[in-house]
Amino acid sequence: MPTDLTISRSAVVQPLDQIAAGMGIGTHLLEPYGRAAAKISLDAVDELADRPRARYVVVTAVTPTPLGEGKTTTTVGLGQAFGVLRRRGVIAIRQPSMGPTFGIKGGAAGGGYSQVTPMEALNLHLTGDMHAVSAAHNLLAAMTDNHVHQGNRLGLDPLSITWRRVLDVNDRDLREIVTGLGGRAHGRPRQTGFDITAASEVMAVLALASSLQDLRARLGRIVVGYTYDDDPVTAEMIKAAGAMAVILREAIKPNLMQTVEQTPVLVHCGPFGNIAHGNSSIVADRIGIRAADYLVTEAGFGADMGAERFFNIKCRASGLVPDAAVVVTTVRALKAHSGKYVVKAGKPLPEELFEENPDDVRAGAANLRKQIANVRLHGVPPVVAVNAFPTDYASEQQAILDIAAEEGVRAAVSTHFADGGKGAVQLAEAVMEACEEPSGFGFLYDDDLPLDAKIDVIARQVYGADGIDVAPAARRQLDRYERHGLGTLPVCIAKTHLSLSADPSLPGAPTGWRLPVREVRASVGAGFIYPVCGDMRTMPALSSSPAAERIDIDEDGQIVGLR
Amino acid sequence: MPTDLTISRSAVVQPLDQIAAGMGIGTHLLEPYGRAAAKISLDAVDELADRPRARYVVVTAVTPTPLGEGKTTTTVGLGQAFGVLRRRGVIAIRQPSMGPTFGIKGGAAGGGYSQVTPMEALNLHLTGDMHAVSAAHNLLAAMTDNHVHQGNRLGLDPLSITWRRVLDVNDRDLREIVTGLGGRAHGRPRQTGFDITAASEVMAVLALASSLQDLRARLGRIVVGYTYDDDPVTAEMIKAAGAMAVILREAIKPNLMQTVEQTPVLVHCGPFGNIAHGNSSIVADRIGIRAADYLVTEAGFGADMGAERFFNIKCRASGLVPDAAVVVTTVRALKAHSGKYVVKAGKPLPEELFEENPDDVRAGAANLRKQIANVRLHGVPPVVAVNAFPTDYASEQQAILDIAAEEGVRAAVSTHFADGGKGAVQLAEAVMEACEEPSGFGFLYDDDLPLDAKIDVIARQVYGADGIDVAPAARRQLDRYERHGLGTLPVCIAKTHLSLSADPSLPGAPTGWRLPVREVRASVGAGFIYPVCGDMRTMPALSSSPAAERIDIDEDGQIVGLR
Repeated sequence: MPTDLTISRSAVVQPLDQIAAGMGIGTHLLEPYGRAAAKISLDAVDELADRPRARYVVVTAVTPTPLGEGKTTTTVGLGQAFGVLRRRGVIAIRQPSMGPTFGIKGGAAGGGYSQVTPMEALNLHLTGDMHAVSAAHNLLAAMTDNHVHQGNRLGLDPLSITWRRVLDVNDRDLREIVTGLGGRAHGRPRQTGFDITAASEVMAVLALASSLQDLRARLGRIVVGYTYDDDPVTAEMIKAAGAMAVILREAIKPNLMQTVEQTPVLVHCGPFGNIAHGNSSIVADRIGIRAADYLVTEAGFGADMGAERFFNIKCRASGLVPDAAVVVTTVRALKAHSGKYVVKAGKPLPEELFEENPDDVRAGAANLRKQIANVRLHGVPPVVAVNAFPTDYASEQQAILDIAAEEGVRAAVSTHFADGGKGAVQLAEAVMEACEEPSGFGFLYDDDLPLDAKIDVIARQVYGADGIDVAPAARRQLDRYERHGLGTLPVCIAKTHLSLSADPSLPGAPTGWRLPVREVRASVGAGFIYPVCGDMRTMPALSSSPAAERIDIDEDGQIVGLR
Repeated sequence: MPTDLTISRSAVVQPLDQIAAGMGIGTHLLEPYGRAAAKISLDAVDELADRPRARYVVVTAVTPTPLGEGKTTTTVGLGQAFGVLRRRGVIAIRQPSMGPTFGIKGGAAGGGYSQVTPMEALNLHLTGDMHAVSAAHNLLAAMTDNHVHQGNRLGLDPLSITWRRVLDVNDRDLREIVTGLGGRAHGRPRQTGFDITAASEVMAVLALASSLQDLRARLGRIVVGYTYDDDPVTAEMIKAAGAMAVILREAIKPNLMQTVEQTPVLVHCGPFGNIAHGNSSIVADRIGIRAADYLVTEAGFGADMGAERFFNIKCRASGLVPDAAVVVTTVRALKAHSGKYVVKAGKPLPEELFEENPDDVRAGAANLRKQIANVRLHGVPPVVAVNAFPTDYASEQQAILDIAAEEGVRAAVSTHFADGGKGAVQLAEAVMEACEEPSGFGFLYDDDLPLDAKIDVIARQVYGADGIDVAPAARRQLDRYERHGLGTLPVCIAKTHLSLSADPSLPGAPTGWRLPVREVRASVGAGFIYPVCGDMRTMPALSSSPAAERIDIDEDGQIVGLR
């Protein structure tokens, strides 16, 4: 099979105004950014408001191995399959981060014959939204330190400043730094650091804002630190929120691209999936939902992570109601969930994983069953997608279909990677049936449940824990947030995505454990509280052989080495 | 008079494909980036190669006050005036830095009725070139630290690393930092810092590259530090140069905008004017020179700074030959050069400066005379432009015209700020005459002159110094560069732009002084050696009342507070 880059380059692309026309979006709402992408004006939200509402399908997964299970590829393949079935499919995905593109490639464009094209535009800059997030974030950082430097009118305790800086690069040396050295004219020494841009609260704010004015208001609510009297200091008080909104005024417009089969793709925002909610933007979905028969969107990691936040954070903020959820699984993932194999990123897969072994697939079924249950918990009909690999055996794929049948869930094997939309037709048909079931969508918890009870509900019902253990410091933080009136916010639990539990080494569906809540932080602008339950890395590093070393231009100026 | 933002918003704008058509550039060479700007494919260089060559006019100035003397505004006004005279004018300017936009506004769009529109697009992101420079620069920084972390195959001495990081923000706390704290997994502690993106060598490289392949080669030559054996370690050796070129593959394309009178403007790159050469890009000029009757470009600061580098660095690299140089002056600047007034940024001007006083103008004439001589040194005909202010008296403007006449130089009073292109018609006519003089353009020094002799030539002939004093450390650095085969590079002297001398407090044309060379650095990728002769600030700071505090969106989502 040709490489992803070759497939991308040989794809037939349609002018983006034609792609938009198929969505009922006129050229007056379109702003081309190069030939690869166009921004859609937010005026589209109002202009399309009277159109019929698309079915809203979220793509989630079993708990993935560190290699991922092809969720983006499945999302793209499913979207393309609607086209094969003469329905209008629109896809909404996150924008990839440039840092990992030059580290270990994340494959954020999908792959094979189910990918967004041109992949080099998607993976590099796109229309500059990530850079705008960095610029807005770092302006707030500079204005915060400058506020202290210029007399500190607000009485901001410099050692309480939680607002770090961000860059879209994998750079371990920026994780922990001391700034403000060199004497009085150059600031005041304090320890801080950089996160990758995707981990910026500004990214989560942009993804959850429903309009430019809502963005402006959310930016103002961002908390950068505390006064000596322990009162929160916000971006509004620092007088930075207006300038931040101005910096983000183009970035809030969703980006239109297309797949290799000319299916429209809305690419917008890329918040982290652990310390943030890991979903693409609300404004993109607000436009997409009026521009298709089926709007397919992807949520980060497994159903315990991205889908739970999709339901309880994103849909709560947007008011949109999902009609079905696709749970992507692979033979490989369920085998790994048997506990017999260890899959590590950057290491070759164990040989035995490639032997025909449907029993091992069944041995890993508990994870799939639990993730199906996690979707049903929210009243949404699940559909299991078996993302086919060339190394799969029919008996192994059948084992997954059997498990789904035992759970009473529609399922299909999908060969979209090799076959494009045609390979996902059965999956699409299953999704279309599921969408016709009466929807019973509901949130897992109410706004007015106390924060610790919200964490407890998710831990028990979604993760399968016996309860939560809140460390004393975390308890004080929870109390502080309740006192500051933030108790009605939803929670976004930052834990490993590699296990349903808080221990990344535990496969399947672990029981008999409790969720340790070490620390609780607040993304007040984004509008959630995030308990930290494990070691969350917010700035990746480069490996001993980073992808960047092999990326170059050739004699014709064409990119080589990008996968 | 209305504000700049009001004038910009009420301007009649032409679709950019029509602007390009007027330059003889077809839509196949144009890539729209939003509605405000379009990128021009580098294929235009070859495609236009047979067209007649435009007259090439550089706009420079007397030594400016800290407020600037309206060089960009004059550049825009002159470009517009060619249109009034039914000639095709094309303008080439630098892209403004976003940092100062939120600090003290630099007015990089020009002003009044001689500005580039829409000014908010020009001042914010534009097409993302600045961000691309940051990303390429910081990838090299991360890969350099990662190289040390992953075993240090090259034997790079970590304490010799001169490659800092960059961000387009005014942030004093980032000037001096310690990175790599937190233990072994998070790098290795060392002192370093951030510069503003405009100060990145990558910016200078981008501005001086003549093609994508030349960019790739220059990036590879960038020196990041030295081995324990004191051999240079380059971006090529770090294996970063290919990925950097890929990151910059869109940024190397010049951006097309227009003035409020629909004159085409090429906006491209913004290298610093002290530690770098302070001129817009060579590729923009290579396109513009085939797309106009007159290509008007601006060089940073006074003629001793930007114009000297324009002649000896930019034209040396591009092979293009200038036909005339406009020396912008103001009544205010010459009065300040009398030594009787102190003009400070952010402070109100002294009242007496506004009184009618042609004698003070004449008392400051030495600076104008010297900058005229600096242009003539390079065999280029100068034209004096008096950038008119409403507070000027006719007698004062006449004093400047008299000085020009004494020097045998064409001169005109230009009211382009208030009147647009019509106000610069006399200036344009003077420039057209000057362009018809036989050109005697030549470099000030040959490639094979030793580095210290090159510095000495500029110091004596351009700055009016009695010679140079090279500190022992600087002498060792010069010897090292000669030893490394860099002796044939041109020099870019980093000194204050506020005086012809190295002392910013000395007005006029100081004599009887020597240029102190403290330190000598190399921008090997950009292709120049830069002696440091004074305290060069490469990361600005925010004031006690930064412009960002007043920038916001209004109820209609329109930007307010941007000047």
